[in-house]
Amino acid sequence: MHAFRSHTCADLTKDNVGETVRLSGWVHRIRDHGGILFIDLRDHYGVTQVLCDPDSPVFAEMEKVRSEWCIRIDGNVKARDPELVNPKLPTGEVEVFVRDLEVLGAADELPLIVFGDQEYPEETRLKYRYLDLRREAMQKNMTMRSDVVASMRRRMWDKGFREYQTPIITASSPEGARDFLVPSRLHPGKFYALPQAPQQFKQLIMVSGYDKYFQIAPCFRDEDPRADRSPTDFYQLDMEMSFVEQQDVFDTISPVIAGIFEEFGGGKKVDAPNEWPQIPYKEAALKYGTDKPDLRNPIEMQDVSEHFRGSGFAIFAKLLEQDGTQIRAIPAPTGGSRKFCDRMNAFAQKEGLPGMGYIFWRDQGDGMEAAGPLAKNIGPERTEAIRQQLGLGVGDAAFFLGGKPAAFERVAGKARDVIGAELNLTDKDRFAFAWIVDFPIYEQDEESGKIDFEHNPFSMPQGGMDALNGDPLAVKGYQYDLACNGYELVSGAIRNHKPEVMLKAFELAGYGADEVKNRFGALFNAFHYGAPPHGGCAAGIDRIVMLLAEQENIREVIMFPMNQRAEDLMMQAPSEPASDQLMELSLRVIPQD
Amino acid sequence: MHAFRSHTCADLTKDNVGETVRLSGWVHRIRDHGGILFIDLRDHYGVTQVLCDPDSPVFAEMEKVRSEWCIRIDGNVKARDPELVNPKLPTGEVEVFVRDLEVLGAADELPLIVFGDQEYPEETRLKYRYLDLRREAMQKNMTMRSDVVASMRRRMWDKGFREYQTPIITASSPEGARDFLVPSRLHPGKFYALPQAPQQFKQLIMVSGYDKYFQIAPCFRDEDPRADRSPTDFYQLDMEMSFVEQQDVFDTISPVIAGIFEEFGGGKKVDAPNEWPQIPYKEAALKYGTDKPDLRNPIEMQDVSEHFRGSGFAIFAKLLEQDGTQIRAIPAPTGGSRKFCDRMNAFAQKEGLPGMGYIFWRDQGDGMEAAGPLAKNIGPERTEAIRQQLGLGVGDAAFFLGGKPAAFERVAGKARDVIGAELNLTDKDRFAFAWIVDFPIYEQDEESGKIDFEHNPFSMPQGGMDALNGDPLAVKGYQYDLACNGYELVSGAIRNHKPEVMLKAFELAGYGADEVKNRFGALFNAFHYGAPPHGGCAAGIDRIVMLLAEQENIREVIMFPMNQRAEDLMMQAPSEPASDQLMELSLRVIPQD
Repeated sequence: MHAFRSHTCADLTKDNVGETVRLSGWVHRIRDHGGILFIDLRDHYGVTQVLCDPDSPVFAEMEKVRSEWCIRIDGNVKARDPELVNPKLPTGEVEVFVRDLEVLGAADELPLIVFGDQEYPEETRLKYRYLDLRREAMQKNMTMRSDVVASMRRRMWDKGFREYQTPIITASSPEGARDFLVPSRLHPGKFYALPQAPQQFKQLIMVSGYDKYFQIAPCFRDEDPRADRSPTDFYQLDMEMSFVEQQDVFDTISPVIAGIFEEFGGGKKVDAPNEWPQIPYKEAALKYGTDKPDLRNPIEMQDVSEHFRGSGFAIFAKLLEQDGTQIRAIPAPTGGSRKFCDRMNAFAQKEGLPGMGYIFWRDQGDGMEAAGPLAKNIGPERTEAIRQQLGLGVGDAAFFLGGKPAAFERVAGKARDVIGAELNLTDKDRFAFAWIVDFPIYEQDEESGKIDFEHNPFSMPQGGMDALNGDPLAVKGYQYDLACNGYELVSGAIRNHKPEVMLKAFELAGYGADEVKNRFGALFNAFHYGAPPHGGCAAGIDRIVMLLAEQENIREVIMFPMNQRAEDLMMQAPSEPASDQLMELSLRVIPQD
Repeated sequence: MHAFRSHTCADLTKDNVGETVRLSGWVHRIRDHGGILFIDLRDHYGVTQVLCDPDSPVFAEMEKVRSEWCIRIDGNVKARDPELVNPKLPTGEVEVFVRDLEVLGAADELPLIVFGDQEYPEETRLKYRYLDLRREAMQKNMTMRSDVVASMRRRMWDKGFREYQTPIITASSPEGARDFLVPSRLHPGKFYALPQAPQQFKQLIMVSGYDKYFQIAPCFRDEDPRADRSPTDFYQLDMEMSFVEQQDVFDTISPVIAGIFEEFGGGKKVDAPNEWPQIPYKEAALKYGTDKPDLRNPIEMQDVSEHFRGSGFAIFAKLLEQDGTQIRAIPAPTGGSRKFCDRMNAFAQKEGLPGMGYIFWRDQGDGMEAAGPLAKNIGPERTEAIRQQLGLGVGDAAFFLGGKPAAFERVAGKARDVIGAELNLTDKDRFAFAWIVDFPIYEQDEESGKIDFEHNPFSMPQGGMDALNGDPLAVKGYQYDLACNGYELVSGAIRNHKPEVMLKAFELAGYGADEVKNRFGALFNAFHYGAPPHGGCAAGIDRIVMLLAEQENIREVIMFPMNQRAEDLMMQAPSEPASDQLMELSLRVIPQD
């Protein structure tokens, strides 16, 4: 017999009754029922009930065993009495009578109970991660993550992509976030950097003629802590393809993403990829107040400025006299009660706005009545025009926000989310996708008036060089995001592969030719040797798994995460280096005040 | 029609004759045959012959096109004249008459010609890697590497393993080599390290109950440059499993490795995994002079000390009077000529030995004669006894090395390789595998007498605690390597999962309990909470691909390698950081003298 097991703890069924078996695993629970020890023996695959009575030659030893000890037992498989069968367990029809026991690894007193769902402070969980990871929920999350990544690979291979590994120790490339630096020992005073993304490498792979690239790529950003991201590294499904337009990228990656959500989405409805809407950035901002809308929520905001221009509602009427202002309505079907409207108004105030005006429509005996102070101020005609534009009726409400869109859009988007959730309009059993397209290439800093890249500087401007010779703020890029249930899952672009267009694009953002050559030299040089048109995208793996596992904290889907202070409490990182290590690197730490 | 291509450059056959097609790719070669331009248009998939005559509306533009320009053409597919069919090309039956042309990316004068096999200095190749990577040999190596890694993953999944990603930014762990450090911005004066291998993490994953782990894992070592290794990072197929013994690991990984070699070995014979010998370390040293023997070579060295003890060959006879000395023979079937023997003797001298004694046997009319000065010195009886022990005859030779094995074993092993190669004994069309087992846990420094770990300190000593209470130098580990054709491809061990045995093992190597807890705290702590017996191994991917691609330089199988000075000439890494980057990290560079 094998030294440790003839079966896993998920294997035994009625068919094994009468056999002598060997199992290894952890003591999940141990109960003493009138002198008989009942042990749930657990391994990665399942649980088997094992019991030991005083007739067993190892009863005395078994009495010493405690939770989470790792043991090996030999025993006889017996059928359970019909009334004791546990239909929830695959092994629930049998139990094993222990005849031999070996303690493989004893356990000290546990800082964290593996059995059950007891909550522990994150510090405890991360310090004793190896115990935390034994818990059922973590086993589920981790195996799902592994299976999701495996499925991504299979799907990309099936589409003719090959995975190519790009360097992890490489050059600093100021793409936006802060680099992690790695001092070079052989070149004192010089540093490598960890890649923020394989962006330049994957484009170089296209210039090298490899046609279709993907990688499950680790990305490194030295970012300030935030709840929903890892403070050090994260993983992307990164892909790039040559001789393609934007729609080709969509046609390639959409079925991969949809397939993953169908495979791991627990039966929730997944919108068919050929029906995913393509929403221009501007339209998304108007309708949803965000470039990552949650389309499970049917609410679409509308511009209702015309109804307030010169109206009796002085606040909005005055607002509209200023350039670039707008009034937007958030329709709230079934939200037509004062109580609900007041609650939403309070929400807006909590978010830092003066409040949200509202109108709600109620049945008033023989007709519909529009209620709320705003309706009174603008009068019945305008109120009715608004109702008709929004397609609302009795029992519905509408909320109104005004000003410069940049100032209220974010809150409007949040209000839309809250309204959708509170009114149960948002379909929780669905993954709703949309491509957001036509992102502007540039944005203008309000204070300095300086033009800078809105997104990634490597995107091809729509209209190419001609467009760059016009108004920069009007230039859209072949640049896109995939939104799902309010999250950005994928981001990508058709790249700017023409060196002269690249120079011009950077010039508009205030970067001289020398700076481009210096910062992005490899790519810029490569584009002088027959660069193909190419484009691609990257999908955030941690976030996809979070969505599929229904988790809100990224650390629930990472095996050994840092805490929010970027510390690994189990491994004790970061730590102080030995002085000879610093010496070898020609470095000195500047003492802190 | 698609904006860039209706077909790839490998697609068109006689079936497409008469069609109008669109192709995109690079101008591989361009020839002007009497006013007609013949262009080999190349993409990742193949080459198609395209031609442009003065009747084409784009002839004038086509005349400007040069090698490695990236172009898009439209044209008509025509059958080639039977005598012009190129049977070596899948597209060799057709050619495309160009009617339209778009230059997608022009190219400057090329620093490196893509077509053909011209050699370039490594500096040129690495600086213009994107051109180098377009060359046929590199395309083959890179796609093979990608396919090998993909096949490894499929094979591991099929065996029930899941891939789990372990941290890349983590704690310094002095496992042997030098760490790359990463300064922490949030914790001034503290550093992370890049993992030398996921050793501790994979063991922690076993303690966490995941049963079967693998990872295509990047490993980072700040090592001094050497031709056959990357100076920064390399990849391993890393695996670990719980509740196993050594043979279980062999039974799991051997078919994976064998399968890879069968799939990508170009038809060379691959020894069947169940026939791979398991050779104890000591026996390997004796027979092959190395722990990574090339078993394609049938030569096995033998201890022939007895024949020289007290013999007339004074050098060896005297040597044998010292403790721990030995005389070993390298049999050389078919090597029986003075010329060959002298050449091998010269080889040994070049390797720093005084020389290799030899005997060779030749036909002397009516009998066999043993020739060479050594035979004369020891006399016919001893010479004949040696011949019989080695199983040699007329036309064969034997070489002799003496002294302390540690002093000559390495050269003996090299001599065995050279003899096997020169005499054509080594079967070049074969991949020959052997597990080397029973490595000693400890070694003794000759000068200081200090005992230290011979290999990896995490291995379980054979015999456990009892063995550690005896002579440390006699303790063998459950520790193994897989050798193939003279390379070490895989290395692994059954781990020491018992904290008290771990403490004792480290104590013998001079590490106190505090140091163990400090250096390997996570693992040591985890072993106190129900650790399962576990073991595994890691296979060097770069080396496996080198063997399969028949390359001698690791940079031929890495997409963007560093040069031997650990510089990336294309990306310009490492480089000097901006002073505010250093400031943020609280670091100062110590000026060099």
